Amino acid sequence: MDSDSTVVFGVAGGTASGKTTVADTILETVGASRVAYLPHDAYYRNMSHLPLEERAQLNYDHPNSLETELLVRHIEKLLAGEAVDVPVYDFTEHRRTEKTIRVVPSPIILVEGILIFTDSRLRELMDIKIYVDTDPDVRFIRRMVRDLEERGRSLDSIIKQYLETVRPMHLEFVEPSKRYADIIIPRGGLNKVALDMVVARLMALLRERQP
Amino acid sequence: MDSDSTVVFGVAGGTASGKTTVADTILETVGASRVAYLPHDAYYRNMSHLPLEERAQLNYDHPNSLETELLVRHIEKLLAGEAVDVPVYDFTEHRRTEKTIRVVPSPIILVEGILIFTDSRLRELMDIKIYVDTDPDVRFIRRMVRDLEERGRSLDSIIKQYLETVRPMHLEFVEPSKRYADIIIPRGGLNKVALDMVVARLMALLRERQP
Repeated sequence: MDSDSTVVFGVAGGTASGKTTVADTILETVGASRVAYLPHDAYYRNMSHLPLEERAQLNYDHPNSLETELLVRHIEKLLAGEAVDVPVYDFTEHRRTEKTIRVVPSPIILVEGILIFTDSRLRELMDIKIYVDTDPDVRFIRRMVRDLEERGRSLDSIIKQYLETVRPMHLEFVEPSKRYADIIIPRGGLNKVALDMVVARLMALLRERQP
Repeated sequence: MDSDSTVVFGVAGGTASGKTTVADTILETVGASRVAYLPHDAYYRNMSHLPLEERAQLNYDHPNSLETELLVRHIEKLLAGEAVDVPVYDFTEHRRTEKTIRVVPSPIILVEGILIFTDSRLRELMDIKIYVDTDPDVRFIRRMVRDLEERGRSLDSIIKQYLETVRPMHLEFVEPSKRYADIIIPRGGLNKVALDMVVARLMALLRERQP
């Protein structure tokens, strides 16, 4: 495995846009064993020196909340044929854990996150950049339902967080980064025609690069 | 050739967005002999009963200026395995000529035009809908240079037509039709990563449907 034969694939898009569905489709179709999966949100900075209450108040939708330089280093290492140890983040405690997940060099490096196209070093490492574009009202509804059902959060706290940080950070950082995408997928993960196209190109690239 | 084995492929986008480059890439890669090419602007309504001066003043960026029902019928006929006679439009004289071009059933039907996603009958016939999205200032510059160099038009008349019909019709009809696209290609025909993806999917579909 060397850098010429590896495809670095980026999937960005707003919160609840359907990024994960796109990533899952790639993992399923190509086979998880051929994909090194690097979610950007595993790289949240470790703020465990702050008390939990303060940590919970931080703005986790701003690019500075992520240790992007470590993600960049990990991609470079994988391209150089070295394994990396991806941090494991605890989203309830808002801190990086002691655990890591070992990720080995693979034909495809899949990078996923709302802010991955805002960083020029990340963009330059990517061969294919996909932006999953879903209307903001639909994204809010999905996020709300998920936070109510899976995370047991109150409607008030969901609305407050959305209006105070998620939405302004989306407009300031995520939405403008769409222009760096090679392809924009509307209607998110439910768009089968687009997913088929992405998978077809990945399979063709794998055939070319890994004969 | 039957309707199940034929791929109907639509390429839309604003004026000078790079639609033709995308269409040309498909024609080159797949081979022109396997593509039935139906440009929407061949179907401008025949207004030759009006004097030339009046014809030149018509709004050619409004959906009503096109005989879309004939284009729909032609796609249906091709899908049913019948050849069609595509009209030849004279853009200097602003009228449909007596000539036609015979187009035969082919593995791919490529439909191209700024307004093809505004019509629900057309949309329903398409398997893959691509919108080529290029910033409006870049599109204006390209259109202006082309009209100055290739069509010998004056700068004044180019600006007047752009502001009076091209731009308002784009905002009213073309831009809103983007939401029907399966995939949006930013930066138009120069976006090689996106073109590779489109071609890979087409080739995969051809392999599946025309074994």
